[in-house]
Amino acid sequence: MLSKSQISLLKSLQHKKERTEHGLFLVEGYKSVIEFINSPYQIEAIYHTASFDPKMLNLSRKINLCEISVTDIQKISSLKTPRDVTALVKIPVWPVLNNQQLKKKFTLVLDGIQDPGNMGTIIRTADWFGIEHIICAEDTVDVYNPKVVQASMGSLSRINVHYTNLEIFLPQIELPVFGAMLNGGNIYHTDFGNEGLIVMGNEGNGMRPEIERLITKAVTIPRTGKAESLNVAIATALFCAEINRKFQ
Amino acid sequence: MLSKSQISLLKSLQHKKERTEHGLFLVEGYKSVIEFINSPYQIEAIYHTASFDPKMLNLSRKINLCEISVTDIQKISSLKTPRDVTALVKIPVWPVLNNQQLKKKFTLVLDGIQDPGNMGTIIRTADWFGIEHIICAEDTVDVYNPKVVQASMGSLSRINVHYTNLEIFLPQIELPVFGAMLNGGNIYHTDFGNEGLIVMGNEGNGMRPEIERLITKAVTIPRTGKAESLNVAIATALFCAEINRKFQ
Repeated sequence: MLSKSQISLLKSLQHKKERTEHGLFLVEGYKSVIEFINSPYQIEAIYHTASFDPKMLNLSRKINLCEISVTDIQKISSLKTPRDVTALVKIPVWPVLNNQQLKKKFTLVLDGIQDPGNMGTIIRTADWFGIEHIICAEDTVDVYNPKVVQASMGSLSRINVHYTNLEIFLPQIELPVFGAMLNGGNIYHTDFGNEGLIVMGNEGNGMRPEIERLITKAVTIPRTGKAESLNVAIATALFCAEINRKFQ
Repeated sequence: MLSKSQISLLKSLQHKKERTEHGLFLVEGYKSVIEFINSPYQIEAIYHTASFDPKMLNLSRKINLCEISVTDIQKISSLKTPRDVTALVKIPVWPVLNNQQLKKKFTLVLDGIQDPGNMGTIIRTADWFGIEHIICAEDTVDVYNPKVVQASMGSLSRINVHYTNLEIFLPQIELPVFGAMLNGGNIYHTDFGNEGLIVMGNEGNGMRPEIERLITKAVTIPRTGKAESLNVAIATALFCAEINRKFQ
């Protein structure tokens, strides 16, 4: 059973301010919870209803398990149809990335993505293509937002997401900086080499001019039809697939 | 001004049953409305608030314009933040496609996509890559669902979406039928030729076995990371981009 103040705390984690203050977020649903249990993330507690058998979690380490009522799980859930199991997870503090850690791999850089669904899909896609790190401008949507956690389908447990000032960060990295832009080189003819950063801009406004200036190679996905633009998660996926091509 | 019964009718178009009954759907927001005005779709009326200047629509043909109150536009809107202009559009009746119309091009086939956001994104992506037709199994989400219309960002005005019994339709088409599946050929090494159907399965369950049997070439997007699956709109985009490659 949960006390009123516990419910109030868990519910408040739907808001970034409270998540940051408490250093905690919620992961809802069996499939995602399992992925976080099998990750380096620290699980503070697992709440489940009577209909859920905790044996399904296959816990090999001691985690605080707490059976709660359906009413209580509904109260703390951000979903229209709450799941029968939810984990309370500690927000990790990622060490600052340096040049060395980004060598011989590709890393995504997001300049102000706002939509939680897009962010979750980008994390899931990055995970499919074996990307380890995503570096975000400070105004990018918070990855511990419940909608991001949901859309990432557990992949958030495997991707390191860093928030930083890109204007300071990018010049420190001695790697090619590819940018998804209009009027760049054709992505199908671009040699991405074997390392670099891929910068994607905001949904509506694209990349900020101060970030554009730091791009060393502008790259464009050629359009044959008439849509004004591609969704940013789609564009990110096309870059990931293209980078992956030479390793296949 | 709208009467109570008009508001009730317009609001009811959020439900498929009423859209089908009346043969009508709503398009919300300036950018999308403009795209439908400049398309073969038949516009029955345009509702706008006093803050919107109808001159912005640049109408070259006579369309029934109706200024309504902010309260009324909120009542008929499906959005949390209603826009200041909304079009009432007639659902077209697409002629049945035949073999000839699908030759020398690629066409998407969707076997039961459920999420309106995915469907809208697929339409927008198809439009970017110059695809003309999308053929859907009958249980695929309705494209005139307000969330699909919204996510398609106006591209729905340019893509012909057909609903049909795929088990009957696919065998009639004398074209290669590529299917996005596990354990197929590597997409990066697949020769798509210059025509064919690309079949994508449902978000959770993939393709139905009876449709799988009609695939002539199974194709897989190779995974280098650990995500269990890719979002279906992402996978569709990767196929579209791959087909497009040889024409670039």
